[in-house]
Amino acid sequence: MKELVTINDVGPRDGLQNQSRTLAPAERLRLIEALLAAGLPAIEVGSFVSPKAVPAMAGAAEVVAGLPVGAAVYSALIPNRKGYDLATAAGVTQVELVVAASQTMNRENINATTEAAMAGCEDIVTAAQADGVKTLACIATAWECPFEGVIDQDVVLGLARDMFAHGADEVVLADTIGAADPAGVKRLTQLAAQEFGADRLSCHFHDTRGMGVANVAAALESGIRKFDASIGGLGGCPFAPGATGNVATEDVALMLGQMGFTTGIDLVKLVAAVDVVSELVGHPQGGNSIRWLRRQIEKGTL
Amino acid sequence: MKELVTINDVGPRDGLQNQSRTLAPAERLRLIEALLAAGLPAIEVGSFVSPKAVPAMAGAAEVVAGLPVGAAVYSALIPNRKGYDLATAAGVTQVELVVAASQTMNRENINATTEAAMAGCEDIVTAAQADGVKTLACIATAWECPFEGVIDQDVVLGLARDMFAHGADEVVLADTIGAADPAGVKRLTQLAAQEFGADRLSCHFHDTRGMGVANVAAALESGIRKFDASIGGLGGCPFAPGATGNVATEDVALMLGQMGFTTGIDLVKLVAAVDVVSELVGHPQGGNSIRWLRRQIEKGTL
Repeated sequence: MKELVTINDVGPRDGLQNQSRTLAPAERLRLIEALLAAGLPAIEVGSFVSPKAVPAMAGAAEVVAGLPVGAAVYSALIPNRKGYDLATAAGVTQVELVVAASQTMNRENINATTEAAMAGCEDIVTAAQADGVKTLACIATAWECPFEGVIDQDVVLGLARDMFAHGADEVVLADTIGAADPAGVKRLTQLAAQEFGADRLSCHFHDTRGMGVANVAAALESGIRKFDASIGGLGGCPFAPGATGNVATEDVALMLGQMGFTTGIDLVKLVAAVDVVSELVGHPQGGNSIRWLRRQIEKGTL
Repeated sequence: MKELVTINDVGPRDGLQNQSRTLAPAERLRLIEALLAAGLPAIEVGSFVSPKAVPAMAGAAEVVAGLPVGAAVYSALIPNRKGYDLATAAGVTQVELVVAASQTMNRENINATTEAAMAGCEDIVTAAQADGVKTLACIATAWECPFEGVIDQDVVLGLARDMFAHGADEVVLADTIGAADPAGVKRLTQLAAQEFGADRLSCHFHDTRGMGVANVAAALESGIRKFDASIGGLGGCPFAPGATGNVATEDVALMLGQMGFTTGIDLVKLVAAVDVVSELVGHPQGGNSIRWLRRQIEKGTL
């Protein structure tokens, strides 16, 4: 029997929040439905942030209300306790909270020290445990920070240790700016898997430097079996407008399938979801494998 | 001290032979000079094939005559004994010969059985040894063949064994159609490295399915320290006109540098070489990291 690897499509959140065009909740639901049709087992459906700060995520509750029940594991990003309250009031049962591994990033992002961010994280995890809500604790800039450069892996492991101690269900190691390479990924994920168990970890990569799937392959070597990815490689990049964002779901799904894993994803329908997102954002999206995938569909060999 | 990984730029050969525009020898020399300026330690400068069969490679002897002596290790592809004689007459001291791992591919490509192709290979290697010419014996379609599908790795190992027994200096495991994945690459390269020694092997990947650098990273795990790549990702694809070709030199060089290896390559000058090749072929070239690289150059941070 093939081993399962779970892809969590973060396109409706990490992808869309970096697009110039703001999509209405009904449009975001259309994208989510295309992902469900392709068999995505996990989807990050939105973010409960201030619509003033992130207009693209306005109406997250409306998106949640429209989700087909039980079709996938849905999660939502929450920046703080207020976001947690809004998300759970909307019916979200899995939340992602974020603390950066770098002090500067936490200050720039949420105007807090790492310690204050972790205290907020602890407060939310405690509430979530009482509420029966699952928590994904994301460590942003786990490899490199745009302000501080390379991150000491002991800092990352320390944060993960604290998050688990507080009761987090899963820790997401996130290469927020797409700066990691396979050697660094293997080093950190091996240590984290040894200490916490690979089944409690997932990874989040961007394809900014073209190493997205190489980093997925490196983390697979450490036993990681859950990855964030974004349909069509959707998502901006803090460095270069128009540059590739998250590693593309189709690139990861294609590679995993070839490597002998099962993902539950239908590649033909996944390319249809790429078409949906391209139409919605108003420009062509697609990962590094998209031309090859389209050609196979034309030939009927996928 | 950092460990050296050698990139052999095959753009002037594998890249250009798949372009619609045919470049004159002087233009190909301009590309080679840009690669030398960027510090490429090895370059495949052309192919001694019939100009009727491959017009893009006409005038290979003229290219060889114009090469700056000693600036890099130069090699040329030869399809047969006649090509060997032409190449060595032109002054080439390192030749690459190709046998496919699949019977059908050999029949389609050179109208010969694998056994006949190997006999030709043996004849050339024997001559080369007498002449003091180094031989790179390439096993094409080492992972998958467009006609026969997945290739039995014992067939590949057997061919490599024969090539070394005949006296080949190096065996190149080539994923000719860009179909390999990191798991398959690791399996085959581990076995080959165990039997023949990693220092006598190199790998040749295409980025057709977006797994080019992931496959390089997988082969690095087996100890392989030499890779073919192509400036700007130059090169066609038998599946999709306009699709990516060889894994891009800039993608591989960037990843290797980040992973702690030394390549001798200057990334700023490498991007200048991407500009040269883009101008020469008449359309923008560039690997998956090119936008990020250009942005770093603008910011002066590369």
